[in-house]
Amino acid sequence: MPHPLFDQHRPMLDRAVEAIRTRGFWTPFPEQPSPKVYGETAQADGKAAYEALLGRDFALDQPGQTGWIAPERSPYGVALDVRYPVCTPQALIDAATVAMPAWRKVGADGRVGICLEIVQRIHQRSFEIAHAVMFTSGQSWGMAFQAGGPHAQDRALEAIAYAWDAMSAVPNEAGWEKPMGKNPPLAMRKHYEITGRGVALVIGCSTFPTWNTYPGLFAALATGNPVIVKPHPNAVLPAAISVRIAREVLAEQGLDPNLVTLAISADPADTQQLATHPAVKSIDFTGGNAFGQWLRQHATQAALYAELAGVNNVLIDSTDDYPAMLKNLAFTLSLYSGQMCTTTQAILVPADGIGTPTGRVGFDQVAADLGATVEQLLASPSTAFALLGAINSEATLARIAQAPQWGRVVLASKRLEHPEFPDAQVHTPVLLACDAADETAYMEERFGPIAFVVKVADTAAGIALSERLVREKGALTVGLYATDDAVIDAMTEATLRAGVALSINLTSGVYVNQSAAFSDYHGTGANPAANASYSDTAFVANRFRVIQRRWHVAPPVAAAA
Amino acid sequence: MPHPLFDQHRPMLDRAVEAIRTRGFWTPFPEQPSPKVYGETAQADGKAAYEALLGRDFALDQPGQTGWIAPERSPYGVALDVRYPVCTPQALIDAATVAMPAWRKVGADGRVGICLEIVQRIHQRSFEIAHAVMFTSGQSWGMAFQAGGPHAQDRALEAIAYAWDAMSAVPNEAGWEKPMGKNPPLAMRKHYEITGRGVALVIGCSTFPTWNTYPGLFAALATGNPVIVKPHPNAVLPAAISVRIAREVLAEQGLDPNLVTLAISADPADTQQLATHPAVKSIDFTGGNAFGQWLRQHATQAALYAELAGVNNVLIDSTDDYPAMLKNLAFTLSLYSGQMCTTTQAILVPADGIGTPTGRVGFDQVAADLGATVEQLLASPSTAFALLGAINSEATLARIAQAPQWGRVVLASKRLEHPEFPDAQVHTPVLLACDAADETAYMEERFGPIAFVVKVADTAAGIALSERLVREKGALTVGLYATDDAVIDAMTEATLRAGVALSINLTSGVYVNQSAAFSDYHGTGANPAANASYSDTAFVANRFRVIQRRWHVAPPVAAAA
Repeated sequence: MPHPLFDQHRPMLDRAVEAIRTRGFWTPFPEQPSPKVYGETAQADGKAAYEALLGRDFALDQPGQTGWIAPERSPYGVALDVRYPVCTPQALIDAATVAMPAWRKVGADGRVGICLEIVQRIHQRSFEIAHAVMFTSGQSWGMAFQAGGPHAQDRALEAIAYAWDAMSAVPNEAGWEKPMGKNPPLAMRKHYEITGRGVALVIGCSTFPTWNTYPGLFAALATGNPVIVKPHPNAVLPAAISVRIAREVLAEQGLDPNLVTLAISADPADTQQLATHPAVKSIDFTGGNAFGQWLRQHATQAALYAELAGVNNVLIDSTDDYPAMLKNLAFTLSLYSGQMCTTTQAILVPADGIGTPTGRVGFDQVAADLGATVEQLLASPSTAFALLGAINSEATLARIAQAPQWGRVVLASKRLEHPEFPDAQVHTPVLLACDAADETAYMEERFGPIAFVVKVADTAAGIALSERLVREKGALTVGLYATDDAVIDAMTEATLRAGVALSINLTSGVYVNQSAAFSDYHGTGANPAANASYSDTAFVANRFRVIQRRWHVAPPVAAAA
Repeated sequence: MPHPLFDQHRPMLDRAVEAIRTRGFWTPFPEQPSPKVYGETAQADGKAAYEALLGRDFALDQPGQTGWIAPERSPYGVALDVRYPVCTPQALIDAATVAMPAWRKVGADGRVGICLEIVQRIHQRSFEIAHAVMFTSGQSWGMAFQAGGPHAQDRALEAIAYAWDAMSAVPNEAGWEKPMGKNPPLAMRKHYEITGRGVALVIGCSTFPTWNTYPGLFAALATGNPVIVKPHPNAVLPAAISVRIAREVLAEQGLDPNLVTLAISADPADTQQLATHPAVKSIDFTGGNAFGQWLRQHATQAALYAELAGVNNVLIDSTDDYPAMLKNLAFTLSLYSGQMCTTTQAILVPADGIGTPTGRVGFDQVAADLGATVEQLLASPSTAFALLGAINSEATLARIAQAPQWGRVVLASKRLEHPEFPDAQVHTPVLLACDAADETAYMEERFGPIAFVVKVADTAAGIALSERLVREKGALTVGLYATDDAVIDAMTEATLRAGVALSINLTSGVYVNQSAAFSDYHGTGANPAANASYSDTAFVANRFRVIQRRWHVAPPVAAAA
């Protein structure tokens, strides 16, 4: 079934499919918020569009609305007061169910074309959405633009490309002709139709309200499922704008906008009702282990794609560029005040120190040098505010305060006064040193700007501890610094066994906490930190099913179309 | 990583991949046990090989063996007395876990090549395995050869083709070069390695001990997982021969044969221990709802691919060939005494009868004619024994005895004396008539040769009832007889909503209970009868994960290999 939007976006789709097969660098969405790329007024226009949303009702015209709620509290300490519609879970599910058959009939081409159009419209609103990401998540402006805008759009496009790749492997029809010896062949015509599984629920997080929401949203939508987006109550606006755009595009295409709805409520029971509803067949969840485990136990009617907690770690054996290594690590620890799910928490250093071009550097010295490098990196206020952003939650603020009890303080966290937002919660990282035996300290996720330099007996013990951390606590990222191929090989084997991505000797402009769409799989799905990945075939293939019908025809039959 | 077996079997693999993409007729394994194809002595040799296994220990040299067990009781009433090794679940899991890393290192090519070699060796033993299938499942010889031999091998090859297709979509490595404006680009080399999820458990059924075991076995094995095959205690031998062949091929390749082991025990707790073991990451299960539900609730550490009970149904609105329709249905009801998971149980007929070229035929007449056609089909003893086979289980025998209480008996079941096997339990189908309101009668699976002609108010009510049966009770197959396109369209929509395969107007040599590999998806995964399909991308894609590693290189980097 040809569709104008599919034809229109086909070149981008084809390039995206090529990218997921070859996994080199590619993006259609420039990451720099440059006036040259986006236009001289893009920044001002986006800011104005964002500000026009504040202090008002964010109408979505959804069914079953019972009231309004304004749950957000900005980490920058500014008022948002956007009021979102509260709708009953049953009304959203009923509307989604009603909308689903027409969405199937659009066909894979049409659905993919419409999803690509939604992503394109989201892209055009990057500056507006970036402001919404910044002021809800606490990210700095630059990061909010990149991670919340183009990078999130990349992840959306990537999920759609995988969905298209998997769906297009199924022919629409086939001719089947079985030779029967001397008798005439048996001949049939068969049709294969792709159907979604049912209502999809996408539960977002407060730190990356678009980057962690788009993959599930677009994977589910493209494969034929209506989607209910349940954002984190503290980061609703970026999701709400995205949902509104999706609804607009769907309506323009003569489709039921209730294929994509926003669920927000003051009552956690509403989310539980959605998650366990028999009509809900898939759940994408980014968040903590407690609710993740609850979902696994109670939402057994749905396929769960979950990203949970972990203890990301880096092992240092040796380096050929000690200052560059320290700078790279300091950047990772500082970016968004360590509030990335990919931020390193445990830096494993042998008791007798590490090898460098100028000789061995002892454990205490490595810890001290890393602390000093973080301090130096954040010495300039403009750099500090651009890197750190603000602390996203009260729980993270509390953890920063508690942190000194978990180890010897190498570098204390400081609160910085933001010149523009006096109530912003800006805090520098705290760096602690401890022994590998102090497992209660570093061996659970301490989300936020809290990192440990952990003393391990030697490199082999460090590799073993890294593997155990991944296996038992989960990790999205592991790093290694080593100049010896044997160490690199041993760590490679350990990460293959444990099932985690490994970054080796990052001393340049790529950081262990960064994951580039189309090239880096985000999460492996092979350790407790996530049971799925952005994105791979497994992320999309079970979101749709193939329903066939067949009937006899007179031979000969034509081959598959 | 090139591998000689991969190169050797590459033409067959390429053709299989083409087949799953185009879904026309194809098989490399001739389904007729013809001396011209398989050799003049194949039948005698296969029978002798089978008989040489009887009454003896079936040694497998597996770890943790604590004794021997001979659990099989043949539906043909003959003694088998094959003794299989009982091994502790933990020993099998430990051995599988130890074997796994080397299996990963073989690489996707090598694993696929070795799996294809195993299938080829199994194919060469088709006659021996067919005898084992016949005497354990109760299938007739002809069916045991086709379904237990070439058709099962087709399903194995199909699963391997899907596994290869999904794995080969992941490049082994990539060059990644990100432009940085006026600065030099960031350049990295990335490697992507495919790893299995962990130990796979494949739990077989008693009726199709190879056809329903091979897809999970080969999907899991090809994607990097060691596999523990747990056959039904009454149909061990076909699985045991297959496992032995797999172990032989693995050992020849210098690999640990414990990558494929047989689990058999007198203690059901052993199966539960296997299923819930933390190392077990996937379970393929064909069987009843009770244990299926138990697995879903308790084996939450594993991905479950389950085929469970259902109520397959056929709606008759009208036909342009009444006698051919009756013959087609009678064949379906008779084949293997209705003991196929795809056998029709409920035949929905409007109260005012059906349209035929010679006028309307009333409900009672349709039922009577169908009963008479079954009787006629089975009138010749040679045809009867070739079609019916023997009753697989005591439970099915008991259901046949109970059946008359569930409706008006249109055709009573008869026991037939098998000329060759006097103790064989051969029973003809029982056909009952009832009203749609008699839901307790026909609305749960009555596995075996028990079918209902169900009186529905009209065609629309029949479509609605068919949809409800599929939604609530599940179905692998639905059929329709209708000469009116509007009825076909309405039923098509109903089956798309409910998620079940539809066969339309089968009056020739294809039957609703038949599913051809490479063309017909067996199960949709979209209704309660199965949460997965033989085979599709979803059946394989989540059985492996991709683990990446990356490091900086000097630009420019080469494109992906």
